Amino acid sequence: MKHFESVAQLLQAASARHPRSQAARAEAHTRWAACAKPLGSLGVLEEDLEQIAAATGSADVDLSRRAVLVFCADNGVIAQGVTQCGPEITTVVANSMARGTCSIDQTARVARCGVVVVDMGILDYDPDAAGLLNRRIANGTADFTSGPAMTRAQAEQAILAGAQVALDQVLRGKTLLATGELGMANTTTAAAVASVLLGVEPESITGRGAGLSDEGLARKVRAIETGLAVNAPDPSDPIDVLAKVGGFDIAAMCGAFLAGAACHVPVLADGLISTVAALCALRLCPECDDVILASHVSAEPAGKLILEALGKKPLICAGMRLGEGTGAVAAMPLLDIACAIYGGATFAQVGMEAYVPQN
Amino acid sequence: MKHFESVAQLLQAASARHPRSQAARAEAHTRWAACAKPLGSLGVLEEDLEQIAAATGSADVDLSRRAVLVFCADNGVIAQGVTQCGPEITTVVANSMARGTCSIDQTARVARCGVVVVDMGILDYDPDAAGLLNRRIANGTADFTSGPAMTRAQAEQAILAGAQVALDQVLRGKTLLATGELGMANTTTAAAVASVLLGVEPESITGRGAGLSDEGLARKVRAIETGLAVNAPDPSDPIDVLAKVGGFDIAAMCGAFLAGAACHVPVLADGLISTVAALCALRLCPECDDVILASHVSAEPAGKLILEALGKKPLICAGMRLGEGTGAVAAMPLLDIACAIYGGATFAQVGMEAYVPQN
Repeated sequence: MKHFESVAQLLQAASARHPRSQAARAEAHTRWAACAKPLGSLGVLEEDLEQIAAATGSADVDLSRRAVLVFCADNGVIAQGVTQCGPEITTVVANSMARGTCSIDQTARVARCGVVVVDMGILDYDPDAAGLLNRRIANGTADFTSGPAMTRAQAEQAILAGAQVALDQVLRGKTLLATGELGMANTTTAAAVASVLLGVEPESITGRGAGLSDEGLARKVRAIETGLAVNAPDPSDPIDVLAKVGGFDIAAMCGAFLAGAACHVPVLADGLISTVAALCALRLCPECDDVILASHVSAEPAGKLILEALGKKPLICAGMRLGEGTGAVAAMPLLDIACAIYGGATFAQVGMEAYVPQN
Repeated sequence: MKHFESVAQLLQAASARHPRSQAARAEAHTRWAACAKPLGSLGVLEEDLEQIAAATGSADVDLSRRAVLVFCADNGVIAQGVTQCGPEITTVVANSMARGTCSIDQTARVARCGVVVVDMGILDYDPDAAGLLNRRIANGTADFTSGPAMTRAQAEQAILAGAQVALDQVLRGKTLLATGELGMANTTTAAAVASVLLGVEPESITGRGAGLSDEGLARKVRAIETGLAVNAPDPSDPIDVLAKVGGFDIAAMCGAFLAGAACHVPVLADGLISTVAALCALRLCPECDDVILASHVSAEPAGKLILEALGKKPLICAGMRLGEGTGAVAAMPLLDIACAIYGGATFAQVGMEAYVPQN
């Protein structure tokens, strides 16, 4: 597989779990049980490695070659005053990422992770600037308070573009991917999409993003309510939801999760926006469940709710809300620790019997 | 300062906050505000670095040279059937640690952290065996269901020994310490100490440790209830509580936190047992607050409660309960990420204005 032809083909590829999924998961569980430590004492880290075994079809877990995919795009709904900053900030931060001086770059250096920055549709960006992959769909989306954010064709194009970026990394040997994003107003689009998919009121899941005031928060909730009223997205059709009230970044991340499933490579979700993309992927293709890993629980109010909807447990609860994939990449050293213990001494090697429940 | 003469002297040294504590905290806060990212978007990680600045008296945070101190000891209360394993397991695991093949060794390699293993009183251990520091107080404590676990003099000796191990690491240039422990039945002693210090019923904070059955859990609660009835530890005197129902490991970790305060070096708490030791230190010396950092919230039921009593927020919520300091060391890469971003690009450097709340 070198590329995805269409969303239909991507979904078909993503829907095939690895044939050794169940066997590998059981094998990983057995290997944990042989590790010289109390059973289950690494909690979610043990579950995560078992899930990765299921995703990849192998109990030999190797997460050493990894990249975070940061999808950047602007959102027309910013016109409604739902953010603290203007769209020019997307451009400035994207430039900083291209130079390797952004928060995600610092995070990735510590976690020994590559950074792939993708321009999905920054409003004002030089498509030939060095350092970003040009996958521009348009100069940002339209303002969803007066019509759909994008066409369905554009949504599919963004999903495919994200999937292809992920596939390209897998073809280069990556064994673990992480998703991240950049784009002013994307906590607004994420809350709008989540509101539709989860069937909850926008008010209950809309947060302050990068630091909105009370009035700003009220405007944000109103913008989402208007967007849902104007566009009436179909909750049973995630692509319709993405097109009408989503963003190019969310659609691309959704594609990346689906590509992970198609390639049997695990993909870490980050915070609110990325987990909403994971939810879209899961609704489009329930079988992609094995490849999606949670990293942290965002400080945004919807963070916990969406993780629960995904059925995923976070590793980090530090109240992060930086975005860019920082939380996903921050989880990598924790997974490294799990891998080191998983590959470490067994009860047999240290000369003791395995722990067994006593009465 | 080369060594601590007495607990009184240790407490006096620990009670002096760094003279630049407040100034350094404010400086660190200002530096975070200049970082090119949304204000406060690293959550607890930002608070932690500000606290470390306060502890060390400098906004230049350097956590690069670090060690985890693993205090090992056996507990006489194991005779009450409160554990899944016998005390011989303490010996086997200590031997594995000495060889560098234990879970904490694997964790520390990933986190680039030294491991110092200290024999505080393993029931059956060769005091001249290589790989462990010999700070033995006795061959384990006495069974607290029929009298005090140790004498007050032994408790003070254990506190001083732990403090000295920490001080020695600081003298060797360590800028960050972590606390860990090993010893069968030490979730029992930790729950007993916590029960007294927090004034709560043993039943409400006693967990299954390494994997106890329902009957085992009931025995554990009864053993603690008996220990408290027999010894009547004084809640206002943490050394009395440690002596009567604690363990050499908890007392030593308490000493390590106090030494951190005396040396102005931050000390990471691990899970249940280590946070109980931190609570003892904080009760003995409220000024040591600045140096104590939480790492993860243990899967043991008392974990969350004790963190709240300490007023500390965890970074990791992975349901770990392995002990040995693994959770504390697992937090180090997260702090490294925070340091990297903290030392990264400022708003001025990326050419944008700082985020300011808008209306």
